[in-house]
Amino acid sequence: MVLSSAIEALKEALKALPGVGPKNAQRMAFHLLERDREGAKKIADALNNALEKITSCERCNTFCESTLCDICASEKRDKSLLCVVETPADLQAIEQVGAYQGLYFVLMGKLSPLEGIGPDQLGFKRLNQIVAENEIHEVIIATNITAEGETTADYTQQMLMPYDVKITRLARGVPVGGELEYMDQRTLAAAFKDRRATSQ
Amino acid sequence: MVLSSAIEALKEALKALPGVGPKNAQRMAFHLLERDREGAKKIADALNNALEKITSCERCNTFCESTLCDICASEKRDKSLLCVVETPADLQAIEQVGAYQGLYFVLMGKLSPLEGIGPDQLGFKRLNQIVAENEIHEVIIATNITAEGETTADYTQQMLMPYDVKITRLARGVPVGGELEYMDQRTLAAAFKDRRATSQ
Ligand SMILES: [Zn+2]
Ligand SMILES: [Zn+2]
Repeated sequence: MVLSSAIEALKEALKALPGVGPKNAQRMAFHLLERDREGAKKIADALNNALEKITSCERCNTFCESTLCDICASEKRDKSLLCVVETPADLQAIEQVGAYQGLYFVLMGKLSPLEGIGPDQLGFKRLNQIVAENEIHEVIIATNITAEGETTADYTQQMLMPYDVKITRLARGVPVGGELEYMDQRTLAAAFKDRRATSQ
Repeated sequence: MVLSSAIEALKEALKALPGVGPKNAQRMAFHLLERDREGAKKIADALNNALEKITSCERCNTFCESTLCDICASEKRDKSLLCVVETPADLQAIEQVGAYQGLYFVLMGKLSPLEGIGPDQLGFKRLNQIVAENEIHEVIIATNITAEGETTADYTQQMLMPYDVKITRLARGVPVGGELEYMDQRTLAAAFKDRRATSQ
């Protein structure tokens, strides 16, 4: 039996979801069509709504529905601290700990020569500008503790060396190979607390 | 940080997918918005397209884009055999084995008193009518070998007893507690081959 083309197309489309293979995509498609058409409609609408509304914060790059995100727009955040992360998910993970009160900068990725991602593909130019033009006392480099994340951190550190700013990196409380997004809050809080000054 | 409401709505909507909890929903939402907006658009379009086009086959209930599904409309299928399954996914699993050439009837669920699903909520009335009005020699009851599937099979068997039709059930080659949708093809083929006549 050839499945109807609309179902085949749906299965194919659902494979864009991270961690979803053909078998799982079919299960999802059948489930929605059989038992939750309302849920399916909600997903479609929520996707279209998010695609339409979500842009990037003009200053820090994170997801945002206006020009500035809530963090960048807030009067309460400590503007002398800047935390550099790879992705909005990492920013979100740190925010959930609630231990950091400074601002962020989201690189939107990590250096990855194999995938053709160099400094120009990430937000380094703007990061440089932000550090140059603002009174920032400390930049906390909070990239993932993976090979590519460490390379990205090294690059960031080198780039910021000319400036009169303290540069720190997360303590290695985060296990090697781990990704911030999936870390438990206590590990992440400890890593924040124990951030170390870099040897310059 | 409160996430943007469009992202929160998307996370919430994605939880309608089977096996997707809050953590996974966030991962999916971030992945799509950060790295695959085109994929997100494709999912939304495929969902809307499927919701619009996919209806039920007028005869057997399975998913279909016209009045009759390909199987019911086919000249090549053996119309004297009727296989009763719970869901379109089960039908699909049997079709993939390629060992069965008859027609199907999809109940669209299983009897489940706890969830308020009785015979009236499933397709029994129409099944009864089909068996009464067509020259069917054998009805193969292929519900899942779970408690509710077996109850559903027993009910089907009782209901069809007045008719001059051979009633069979899948051999218990399918392990107890197993669901057809996830069975390997050889087990399913064996269960089909060894289907047993019911004691009437
Ligand atoms: Zn911002
Ligand atoms: Zn049909």
